[in-house]
Amino acid sequence: MINIDLAISGAHILTIDQNMTEYKRGSIYISGNRINWIGPDVQQPENCIIREKIDASGKIILPAFFNGHNHAAMSIFRGLGNDQSLDKWLNEFIWPAERDLMNPATVYLGTMLSVIEMVRSGSGIFSDMYFFEDEVARVCEEVGIRGIIGEAIFDFPTPSRATPQEAMEFTRQLYNRFSNHPLINVSVAVHAPYTCSPDVIRQAGELSEELNIPANIHLAETIAEIETMAERYGKTPVQYLYDLGFLSGRTVAHHSIHLTQDDRHLLKETGTNVVTLPNSNMKLGSGACSVAELILLGITVALGTDGPASNNNQSMIREIQQLARLERVINLDPTGLSARELIRIATINGAKAYHLDKDLGSLECGKKADFQIINPNQPHWYPLYDPYNSIAYAMHSEDVESVIIEGKVVMRNRVLVNVDEERIFREMKKKIM
Amino acid sequence: MINIDLAISGAHILTIDQNMTEYKRGSIYISGNRINWIGPDVQQPENCIIREKIDASGKIILPAFFNGHNHAAMSIFRGLGNDQSLDKWLNEFIWPAERDLMNPATVYLGTMLSVIEMVRSGSGIFSDMYFFEDEVARVCEEVGIRGIIGEAIFDFPTPSRATPQEAMEFTRQLYNRFSNHPLINVSVAVHAPYTCSPDVIRQAGELSEELNIPANIHLAETIAEIETMAERYGKTPVQYLYDLGFLSGRTVAHHSIHLTQDDRHLLKETGTNVVTLPNSNMKLGSGACSVAELILLGITVALGTDGPASNNNQSMIREIQQLARLERVINLDPTGLSARELIRIATINGAKAYHLDKDLGSLECGKKADFQIINPNQPHWYPLYDPYNSIAYAMHSEDVESVIIEGKVVMRNRVLVNVDEERIFREMKKKIM
Repeated sequence: MINIDLAISGAHILTIDQNMTEYKRGSIYISGNRINWIGPDVQQPENCIIREKIDASGKIILPAFFNGHNHAAMSIFRGLGNDQSLDKWLNEFIWPAERDLMNPATVYLGTMLSVIEMVRSGSGIFSDMYFFEDEVARVCEEVGIRGIIGEAIFDFPTPSRATPQEAMEFTRQLYNRFSNHPLINVSVAVHAPYTCSPDVIRQAGELSEELNIPANIHLAETIAEIETMAERYGKTPVQYLYDLGFLSGRTVAHHSIHLTQDDRHLLKETGTNVVTLPNSNMKLGSGACSVAELILLGITVALGTDGPASNNNQSMIREIQQLARLERVINLDPTGLSARELIRIATINGAKAYHLDKDLGSLECGKKADFQIINPNQPHWYPLYDPYNSIAYAMHSEDVESVIIEGKVVMRNRVLVNVDEERIFREMKKKIM
Repeated sequence: MINIDLAISGAHILTIDQNMTEYKRGSIYISGNRINWIGPDVQQPENCIIREKIDASGKIILPAFFNGHNHAAMSIFRGLGNDQSLDKWLNEFIWPAERDLMNPATVYLGTMLSVIEMVRSGSGIFSDMYFFEDEVARVCEEVGIRGIIGEAIFDFPTPSRATPQEAMEFTRQLYNRFSNHPLINVSVAVHAPYTCSPDVIRQAGELSEELNIPANIHLAETIAEIETMAERYGKTPVQYLYDLGFLSGRTVAHHSIHLTQDDRHLLKETGTNVVTLPNSNMKLGSGACSVAELILLGITVALGTDGPASNNNQSMIREIQQLARLERVINLDPTGLSARELIRIATINGAKAYHLDKDLGSLECGKKADFQIINPNQPHWYPLYDPYNSIAYAMHSEDVESVIIEGKVVMRNRVLVNVDEERIFREMKKKIM
């Protein structure tokens, strides 16, 4: 007899495995935190003792989304100083507010708010770059979502660390504390080429190599960055990082908008991964990353929301749909990224970029049980010619009915299981508004 | 004593009147189909007999959205042949499907589906251009939403009419039938400069003038259209319509993407109104209309979803949020259209474009009672620095809790009052899927 903790049946399962296997009426059997069996309903294994069953008839099952880049606690600043130039926004609104408001308690609260929003829109994991990242880990443990936590490294003091060395030392502590944690991974989080000295970037790269963990960095996000780097070093930001030995298969480069063809080849040559952030890039007027071009070169491109202050939302569904449209309008061509490709970008590609694809990103026997159950009985889902298409263009966040992470139901019928959402809203009102 | 049919109090009211008046805790008193009184709770009039009260404490009230352009029945084709070039999509998927599938019953069903989606996302009115428009009117009457119906005029036979003259004659019949209808207005709906001969465009313009009703047309939507018109007439589409005497204050030009500076001045000179359709323009790879430029010239710009097959969604909230972001990325500047301007574009500007602003588009004493009640108790609304900003960047369609049109509650707590949604979904499954 096989012990099954949770058996879900009757669903249209989009596995997002290499063959894009689908089961029109399929089941997933979970033992502990892993998928024990997945396949068509009619081939369900016998000799199972099933602890809990969910009938998902008429529903769609998809891997949980992989949010490749965030500053989750910045929900606290959502809407603050909107409609300003980037320079004015940072200097007059965000940076003073960070100095005044950011402490462990507000990072906890802001991250909790974002995590609620992420789970409610189907995300199972997010990569974070901010301050007091131990608080981010605490939120993940409480809610039951995965987090890749990265304490931000700047040349100058941050709300949490006085020097870049302290931030790196803290990264090492986080690594030691969480290296066997079921939900938490740790990354080295270098803010950007223009906010870190060559020495700091070199040291951070070495730390990532030593611990064999991802190294995040904002890269080629704005024209201003390109100009600054040209002025300081006579190089593009990509060339600069390449010359410092920072770029590798562990590197995850966020934004990567303003690239030369040489830059793209350096990213390809080094195995650097890219996370594209279409809503943030549009809202901040940064520009548009040409994703199809990167994919054509064989670069792994994942997707993220960026922080809530620059988006201003935390739904990966909105990112998929934005990437779909942005790619089409910049090329004046509606044949660029297919709906299937877009959904791979939002799921398995994130797992690949962070070297977690052995466990995450697709629904296969032996992989972690991380997925969402979607209810398509909504007007915008009719008629249903192709579920990939409906996800890539029409779906709403609220259609995500339940979310399973690490084999546990984290949201059930639109209610988060482990957190009192109303309490968080009240706290946010009391502390921030 | 004053008879009040419906009194709503406690809400944060965004009136969108000329001064952008707000009431932090305000009330709206409705008598029949009009606003009898609006103001702060503390100044509520005495001597009223109130039939029904709604406590909207903690909620936000905003005018219902004005969806300036649609082909609502095309929901039937939503997702069909996505990811194809525009040419292939129309020739191999949409036009054959229209020939095979479009009849009064399917137009009724497809429009009903879209109308459900529109009400659920806060729209109170939509302008439609399609076939069998009497069926569109029937849907509007049943659901309680406003419609501006326009029977599409082409040189060639449509699923409903054999000749452009028949379509114009039918427009006249619709006008005679609905000219005093509380919910239905009629427009002349010319498909496009490249699908109608000069004579037909001239006649349609005359009909619009004679009946004093709006004249809709698709204009300057694609590069291909610009090339076709240059080849045929040696003119831009705008110049061509101007020379035919078609452009006037009654004209509503949809898309208006590929414009020369001379074109813009002709639109301004003639008082032509523009409806921008950002999601459709992006999805179809048509291009981006530079809205701030048009507004700077003093042209009235409204907003629409376009048909569900080219969007693929019917939520005006998604259009506001898309326009916000698209405008910022095409100009690489986050200071273009403010959140307040965006919301004016989605409400009062639509009413102005169709000369209905005496009654619609803002919440003022004596105007029609058309508005939405929004529930901001959602994670993406926290913290709430500025409600305009939250609407323009973070809001979801599902936050629309109730919709009042013509003084009647059409959706109450996410349930449409006059239509059985599940029945429509079942019909759609049976007939189309």
